[in-house]
Amino acid sequence: MARKRRKRYHPPGTQPGTLAAHDEAGDVPVRITAFLYDANRCEERTVSLSEIPSLSPPEGGVLWVDVSGLSEPAAIQAIGDRFGIHPLALEDVMNIPQRPKVEWYGDRMLVILQEIRYPEPVEQMSFFLADRVVVSFQERPGDAFEPVRERVRKGKGRIRAEAADFLLYSLCDAVLDAFFPTLEKLGDAVEEMEERVLLSPVPETFLAIRRIKRELLAVRHAVWPARDALNQLLIEEHALIRPGTKVFLRDCYDHTIQLMDMVETFREMASGLVDEYMSAVSNRMNETMKVLTVMATIFIPLTFIAGIYGMNFDTKASPYNMPELAWAYGYPALLLLMAVVAGGMLYYFRRKRWI
Amino acid sequence: MARKRRKRYHPPGTQPGTLAAHDEAGDVPVRITAFLYDANRCEERTVSLSEIPSLSPPEGGVLWVDVSGLSEPAAIQAIGDRFGIHPLALEDVMNIPQRPKVEWYGDRMLVILQEIRYPEPVEQMSFFLADRVVVSFQERPGDAFEPVRERVRKGKGRIRAEAADFLLYSLCDAVLDAFFPTLEKLGDAVEEMEERVLLSPVPETFLAIRRIKRELLAVRHAVWPARDALNQLLIEEHALIRPGTKVFLRDCYDHTIQLMDMVETFREMASGLVDEYMSAVSNRMNETMKVLTVMATIFIPLTFIAGIYGMNFDTKASPYNMPELAWAYGYPALLLLMAVVAGGMLYYFRRKRWI
Amino acid sequence: MARKRRKRYHPPGTQPGTLAAHDEAGDVPVRITAFLYDANRCEERTVSLSEIPSLSPPEGGVLWVDVSGLSEPAAIQAIGDRFGIHPLALEDVMNIPQRPKVEWYGDRMLVILQEIRYPEPVEQMSFFLADRVVVSFQERPGDAFEPVRERVRKGKGRIRAEAADFLLYSLCDAVLDAFFPTLEKLGDAVEEMEERVLLSPVPETFLAIRRIKRELLAVRHAVWPARDALNQLLIEEHALIRPGTKVFLRDCYDHTIQLMDMVETFREMASGLVDEYMSAVSNRMNETMKVLTVMATIFIPLTFIAGIYGMNFDTKASPYNMPELAWAYGYPALLLLMAVVAGGMLYYFRRKRWI
Amino acid sequence: MARKRRKRYHPPGTQPGTLAAHDEAGDVPVRITAFLYDANRCEERTVSLSEIPSLSPPEGGVLWVDVSGLSEPAAIQAIGDRFGIHPLALEDVMNIPQRPKVEWYGDRMLVILQEIRYPEPVEQMSFFLADRVVVSFQERPGDAFEPVRERVRKGKGRIRAEAADFLLYSLCDAVLDAFFPTLEKLGDAVEEMEERVLLSPVPETFLAIRRIKRELLAVRHAVWPARDALNQLLIEEHALIRPGTKVFLRDCYDHTIQLMDMVETFREMASGLVDEYMSAVSNRMNETMKVLTVMATIFIPLTFIAGIYGMNFDTKASPYNMPELAWAYGYPALLLLMAVVAGGMLYYFRRKRWI
Amino acid sequence: MARKRRKRYHPPGTQPGTLAAHDEAGDVPVRITAFLYDANRCEERTVSLSEIPSLSPPEGGVLWVDVSGLSEPAAIQAIGDRFGIHPLALEDVMNIPQRPKVEWYGDRMLVILQEIRYPEPVEQMSFFLADRVVVSFQERPGDAFEPVRERVRKGKGRIRAEAADFLLYSLCDAVLDAFFPTLEKLGDAVEEMEERVLLSPVPETFLAIRRIKRELLAVRHAVWPARDALNQLLIEEHALIRPGTKVFLRDCYDHTIQLMDMVETFREMASGLVDEYMSAVSNRMNETMKVLTVMATIFIPLTFIAGIYGMNFDTKASPYNMPELAWAYGYPALLLLMAVVAGGMLYYFRRKRWI
Repeated sequence: MARKRRKRYHPPGTQPGTLAAHDEAGDVPVRITAFLYDANRCEERTVSLSEIPSLSPPEGGVLWVDVSGLSEPAAIQAIGDRFGIHPLALEDVMNIPQRPKVEWYGDRMLVILQEIRYPEPVEQMSFFLADRVVVSFQERPGDAFEPVRERVRKGKGRIRAEAADFLLYSLCDAVLDAFFPTLEKLGDAVEEMEERVLLSPVPETFLAIRRIKRELLAVRHAVWPARDALNQLLIEEHALIRPGTKVFLRDCYDHTIQLMDMVETFREMASGLVDEYMSAVSNRMNETMKVLTVMATIFIPLTFIAGIYGMNFDTKASPYNMPELAWAYGYPALLLLMAVVAGGMLYYFRRKRWI
Repeated sequence: MARKRRKRYHPPGTQPGTLAAHDEAGDVPVRITAFLYDANRCEERTVSLSEIPSLSPPEGGVLWVDVSGLSEPAAIQAIGDRFGIHPLALEDVMNIPQRPKVEWYGDRMLVILQEIRYPEPVEQMSFFLADRVVVSFQERPGDAFEPVRERVRKGKGRIRAEAADFLLYSLCDAVLDAFFPTLEKLGDAVEEMEERVLLSPVPETFLAIRRIKRELLAVRHAVWPARDALNQLLIEEHALIRPGTKVFLRDCYDHTIQLMDMVETFREMASGLVDEYMSAVSNRMNETMKVLTVMATIFIPLTFIAGIYGMNFDTKASPYNMPELAWAYGYPALLLLMAVVAGGMLYYFRRKRWI
Repeated sequence: MARKRRKRYHPPGTQPGTLAAHDEAGDVPVRITAFLYDANRCEERTVSLSEIPSLSPPEGGVLWVDVSGLSEPAAIQAIGDRFGIHPLALEDVMNIPQRPKVEWYGDRMLVILQEIRYPEPVEQMSFFLADRVVVSFQERPGDAFEPVRERVRKGKGRIRAEAADFLLYSLCDAVLDAFFPTLEKLGDAVEEMEERVLLSPVPETFLAIRRIKRELLAVRHAVWPARDALNQLLIEEHALIRPGTKVFLRDCYDHTIQLMDMVETFREMASGLVDEYMSAVSNRMNETMKVLTVMATIFIPLTFIAGIYGMNFDTKASPYNMPELAWAYGYPALLLLMAVVAGGMLYYFRRKRWI
Repeated sequence: MARKRRKRYHPPGTQPGTLAAHDEAGDVPVRITAFLYDANRCEERTVSLSEIPSLSPPEGGVLWVDVSGLSEPAAIQAIGDRFGIHPLALEDVMNIPQRPKVEWYGDRMLVILQEIRYPEPVEQMSFFLADRVVVSFQERPGDAFEPVRERVRKGKGRIRAEAADFLLYSLCDAVLDAFFPTLEKLGDAVEEMEERVLLSPVPETFLAIRRIKRELLAVRHAVWPARDALNQLLIEEHALIRPGTKVFLRDCYDHTIQLMDMVETFREMASGLVDEYMSAVSNRMNETMKVLTVMATIFIPLTFIAGIYGMNFDTKASPYNMPELAWAYGYPALLLLMAVVAGGMLYYFRRKRWI
Repeated sequence: MARKRRKRYHPPGTQPGTLAAHDEAGDVPVRITAFLYDANRCEERTVSLSEIPSLSPPEGGVLWVDVSGLSEPAAIQAIGDRFGIHPLALEDVMNIPQRPKVEWYGDRMLVILQEIRYPEPVEQMSFFLADRVVVSFQERPGDAFEPVRERVRKGKGRIRAEAADFLLYSLCDAVLDAFFPTLEKLGDAVEEMEERVLLSPVPETFLAIRRIKRELLAVRHAVWPARDALNQLLIEEHALIRPGTKVFLRDCYDHTIQLMDMVETFREMASGLVDEYMSAVSNRMNETMKVLTVMATIFIPLTFIAGIYGMNFDTKASPYNMPELAWAYGYPALLLLMAVVAGGMLYYFRRKRWI
């Protein structure tokens, strides 16, 4: 999911506002779809490059231009020209990934979010809001907007009766809702690790924990600034965002807080897993050491005793030289002695609860 | 207690304000009880679905509608319609768990708290406050409100003489008071672990510590935002909350601070326990190692000496070949030497305080 | 010192403002002492329960009622009634321990502090300030107020010439001053541990460090909110606190900052001690391991060599079978070989600085 | 890259505003280049010390004085005198390194940034902004300004049509853009370490991780205060910075936030690497221990058994003395016994997954 | 340098404003020097106790009273009386150490700083600023003020032309400048430790790291509140501090930020050193373990084989009893076998890179 994606920067010193397609963007053709709707009807059509200059919201209605694929700077530039998007805003749209943010350019607004929709890679969603117009830019086809499109097409709920700000809210909400299943998956992964970490504290487990932490970090980087951006939308007064829509944006903001709560909980759990892994490795080492100690401690004295009676002192030279060797019950007695020593050791280890 | 409970989210893209019963809510039938009271009298009755539209607060009095069970969206919707609850507020009531919060919807207010009442699982308590009306929603029968009900029924204290905001305060206070015994239990558990961690640093102990940390985290997640919510109630001016009630809410806010203090203290103690566990494991390992070292270090030289005199050099071939074997006191002298070596080792270890 | 003291809460759901003596409070009889003073004279007397309603500050002077022992709700209630103390304030006085705080109830004020006066257990000090009246509540006889009483009795300093707010300041200052010797003791304990932790990293040392950290945490819990409370006193404008007294309260606030500095320094040092303990345990283990390795590595090859010449190959069967056994200098040469091997090992270990 | 560079301070007590060249600055000759441009033309020339007093911006245009090399206090002083730079500002320019900051001196402004342009060492860039004048000071020749110079020379983009504040923005942007490739390199290094840390947890790897952490810290020290400085430029109203330029500065500020995000992510990853290193060392130790334990545990009992039958009990003295020695199949049976013991051990270790 | 210095508190309950010399202050005689200067002349003289009441600033000029030694409360009191220093301010001057701070007492001001001038112990510097008067109190003779005195005596720079606030700034600046060489020394020490920690991870190294951390903590405790104090001077409007002086104070404030940056960098490096020490100890242990394992694993099987052929099975009793003993090449073959076993082991360890 959290495929590595570094900031693809312009070569240092590039003139501000320069549009250039990034390597990763290159293969995806640009597809532009327009929805023109008001309370009573909805028209949906694919738009070619040449039609862009004539795109207009229907009278009393809303125009939603959905751009998927960022490989053609010319098309993006044409849309920017048509709707008066600031060159720096356009640059942010193409210069993926940007940090989620809200920016006002006079009476227009740019909202950038990062979508993490399991198991897709991260995708930047940029929304441009002007009077009665929403332009959405996405990196690839495939998004979380299908339910919104359905509602626009069929006029379900209040979406067709509302202005462009409500459409913006609906799209942001769709992006943020897609985080919940992703986090659910990560939560399951954390819990699976909790089982595994104590049973098999092997390096693979450690790597799996690291991978989960990495993905949680990616989600955090996508959600944390989104929360700030939504808060900014709520606080600042702007003609484009009507008070009635703010109630809905507050709900959306609330979701980001819940997402952060989940992320932080999982991150804390994942951090605990590293401790547990280290503790499990220590415990294993202790077990290994105990086996060695028990074996060595039992047999080393026995071997010593056997060594004693393997000495070659000349029993004939003196009656003091190992007379035991010639005793009638010397050997059985020695075996008994050895058994007693071993038994004593075992009893000692049993009492120490090592075996 | 802290039974796992993830956010049960709508499928991404669900229309905002959609009410749907969650799996967990499914088995609990909805029971609606209404209290109608003023300073002089109190009427308590069970309300059926059809009676909802005609529910009204008594003249000059307060209406408390207590809804237990969230399995029937129709009932919840009916109550929402009757009292003008915003669709997003209703969605939050059903979409458990929500983060504790306070939200104003014009002249109405929604308060959400999480109740952790040992040994019950976490339960979301949602309160809706309007002029002379309080509606409380709970997930299941069984709550901390019985003393409040008693006071309302019998007119104990000032509750019947006060307005709806005082009832809201009383209910919030009851929810928060229930945290104290829960934390007491967790504090006892932490202290029990402090004994155990040094005596038996086994993986089970580690798991028990982890469990306690998990439950403290759950309490923290319930109390921390509740504190913010109460603070918001105190700071913001709103006609529904009279200044006289704020003195009581301040007391309630104070309780959340005390709860946070307790939670943080226990959490710090529990974090220390992990260190202690690791240190105890290390100490055990050190003990094991010392036993091994003492045994090996005493017997390895002795075994070597015995090995020397087990060699088969031909004593007859040369007078230099192990003449000791034929000495009259060779064997006793050797045993003495061995005793001296062992004694020296023991003295050395005693001085190092290993034995 | 930091005897465990959890919040003794009412049973959940208790009506707000209910007064009840706590178990711990039970044995200490209530003693009430009144100081009536103005610039010229000072009267000190013990007050019985029946005299409470007639207590009044002298004309142009100050009344200080000092209540020691919280076992009789009736007495506390009588004092509360006489001086118009809010029921919630009285509840906080009896419901020990409360977090240190300042609370205004209209034109009256409640200040709660925790006194940690070595080696006494923690004691809650509650101060109620009204016009020309200070009521102080303490859990037990024995306090840090004796120097204040002396100054009131003998008219030393400016205390008798000032109003009730200066008395309040003097009492708070006395409580906070008592922290300094306590922290001095804890600082000494931390420094003693720094010596011990490297010399004898045994579990007892770890437990002692844990105990110190616990006590520092207790002091922190008493001082940190006291700082906030004093800051609040400084910032908020209130008729009861005259600007001239604020200069003194600022000094008092300054002391809390110094106390926090000391606490945090000691806490940081104590945290470092845990690291040092772990490092000392590791070092010990390393030492143990080196002893084992040195002994084993020297004697294992020697024992092997001795084992070789203990084999029973039939020297008569073949000239290749251990002819060394019959050499004239075989045995001395072997002993020499062994000495060389052992010496080489010792040299190797010496170079590695293991011995 | 992050060559060690401590603050080179004046000797304590030096009079404020004293200019002195620092050791490090000593070898680099001062080169002064002036750009005089307006919308229509651009003049670029090298300026000698004597020409400084006569430098002026062209009518309706902008003067950019670029000073490279800080070895001659006299030249710096002359420029300061010509453009009215405050002595303390000049001192900051020469007293490298300063923390990145923005400072207003009446109607003039000083901006200080640190440039980290891989693989160059850190270089302080100081910008002085006055009405129609920008003076830039750098420690050495070689900078990230070439694209800006190109745009000024050739009139590309809007730079020649804008005022001095836009030139300041362009220079700051160039400095900050140079951080991206540097961070990319550090990110690659972190990822390379992630591979290496598990494969070869040797001290060299640890040192490499430490080096990366050091360099990330250096970047952080350069970017964090730059972010604050840019934010200050955005927030404060000042005649020198026109609102139109603020949109561009906001973009620049946005870059610092992205840089901080990258730095913090890499720092978190690098911190995780230390844990992984320790865990890999532990795992290695565990492996070593297992090898030892397996070998010792298999052979110690076998050696003991062999020791038994190496004893010299006199078989003729008693039928109980080691009769096995004379059995016909004694030796093969014993070898079989040994094989069984060794096999049992191996089976036990296999089941424990040690081998 | 960072000689231990705890807060020397009054006995708890001491009347506020009581002056008492502390033990440490006792031996240093009080020396009072006065500088009376204006733009044109400067008079410097030693002042006796009896002259204090008649000290006055020259007309249109500034009086600087420098008090060194705090052993005589009477002298301090006399100065306080002469210049109207608040009793609590005087108490702070004598009650060393105080936290660095700025305090206004009506139209007078107290500034307290801690001077850490390597290798001197910490010294409290208190400055009292009134109209045209600065009184400085230091614990001992010897300070960082000599360059300031020179500038006052010789009229270098602007100091004689400025008011008392500029003198105060110059003194504060001198105190703060003295931190830079101290931190340089600590930085060198940290870097030296970085070399040593990997080469010789012995407890002495750990102690040295601990000592450095302690000293960094002491510097932090001196600089951090000084930063806040200077910031307060900058922000608050007060007639005693003229706007022109604030530019210089801002420079001074900037130095404290640079100092904090250095302290935090060194602290972070020192914290990393503890990790490195632990890792180096672990590595050493691993090395030890490998030596043991290699030796034991090579020789244990060899010893076992030798043990086999040391058994006394009666070769005459049966042809199956150790016939090898009588083989012609038995012994050489066995030695060869042993060499093969040892070689195999060595090869295995070489492949595992243990040797």
